Amino acid sequence: LPYAQQVENLSHESLVRRASCLVTDSASTYLSQTTLALVEALTLYTKALHTLIALQKRYLNSIGKLTPAEEDSIWQVIIGQRVEVGDRLDECKRFESNWMNAISICELSAEAAYRSGAEHASIALKTSLQVAQSKLEEMRGLRVAAEKSLAETKADEIQRMAEYSSSLKMNDLEDLPEAYLRED
Amino acid sequence: LPYAQQVENLSHESLVRRASCLVTDSASTYLSQTTLALVEALTLYTKALHTLIALQKRYLNSIGKLTPAEEDSIWQVIIGQRVEVGDRLDECKRFESNWMNAISICELSAEAAYRSGAEHASIALKTSLQVAQSKLEEMRGLRVAAEKSLAETKADEIQRMAEYSSSLKMNDLEDLPEAYLRED
Repeated sequence: LPYAQQVENLSHESLVRRASCLVTDSASTYLSQTTLALVEALTLYTKALHTLIALQKRYLNSIGKLTPAEEDSIWQVIIGQRVEVGDRLDECKRFESNWMNAISICELSAEAAYRSGAEHASIALKTSLQVAQSKLEEMRGLRVAAEKSLAETKADEIQRMAEYSSSLKMNDLEDLPEAYLRED
Repeated sequence: LPYAQQVENLSHESLVRRASCLVTDSASTYLSQTTLALVEALTLYTKALHTLIALQKRYLNSIGKLTPAEEDSIWQVIIGQRVEVGDRLDECKRFESNWMNAISICELSAEAAYRSGAEHASIALKTSLQVAQSKLEEMRGLRVAAEKSLAETKADEIQRMAEYSSSLKMNDLEDLPEAYLRED
């Protein structure tokens, strides 16, 4: 049926359907790239948080056993790590904005493909959407756990500092490292 | 700088930006195809409307001069043309729905490209959007004019039929073609 096939290829319906498949393909690529970028950013952020938690725990365990110079150098590292955490969080926010755009484009493209008669492309894209969304759910779970863990370390910190303070004479209090008074 | 270039190619930022350009490219193609399809559908609909108007005018000009058989055959043609107009309008509605989806996808894609750092692709797509929108404005103008013209013909028709009726003896009224009572 070469003639019938040619007519089908030239109909506006068919051209619109094909073009809508190009959109679902590229939307799917965009979703993959933004998902990969966001997953890596979240991984690095979570890792940076865990490093910060470990540093703060190490500091807590050594309270009262360090020279002022040692305290200072630990605090330099902790402050550097806090900056790293902030940078990683900014990166997450940037890639999250791209990822949300990708999700919206995919939803719209899947709908458009369906209405253009490209049901398969529409279903395939919806499947990719679900995979990306559950991957991100998982990553966000890890992030929330790390942030909770950091909050717990901070509570620990406050308690230990209180204990340490009361164990010191009042006139020794001014030796508390200044950096400790900084906001996280 | 082959090494620096390679690093740039591999960054998530760069991959996301490239993928967003794929989306703007395909969104632009989809917009072109849906615009072409809708423009053709609107052209055919407007043409069908003008044919219907011409047929109705010809009928009006021949009121009272035709045999019942002639009236009947003219009415067959008018009814056929009304069906054609209805089919063309359905086609317009279908392609208009695709076109509106394309517009939404393009708006979102242009926004996403901009946020991914692909400003050029974003601007190019916004330009395509404006061209498509003004083309459609123009087509809709022609459609509205044709529909207005049809409405005027109908008003004409009602007046002429009233004149014709009053010029007939009351007992001749039952000869009015039945098809004339149909809804447009």
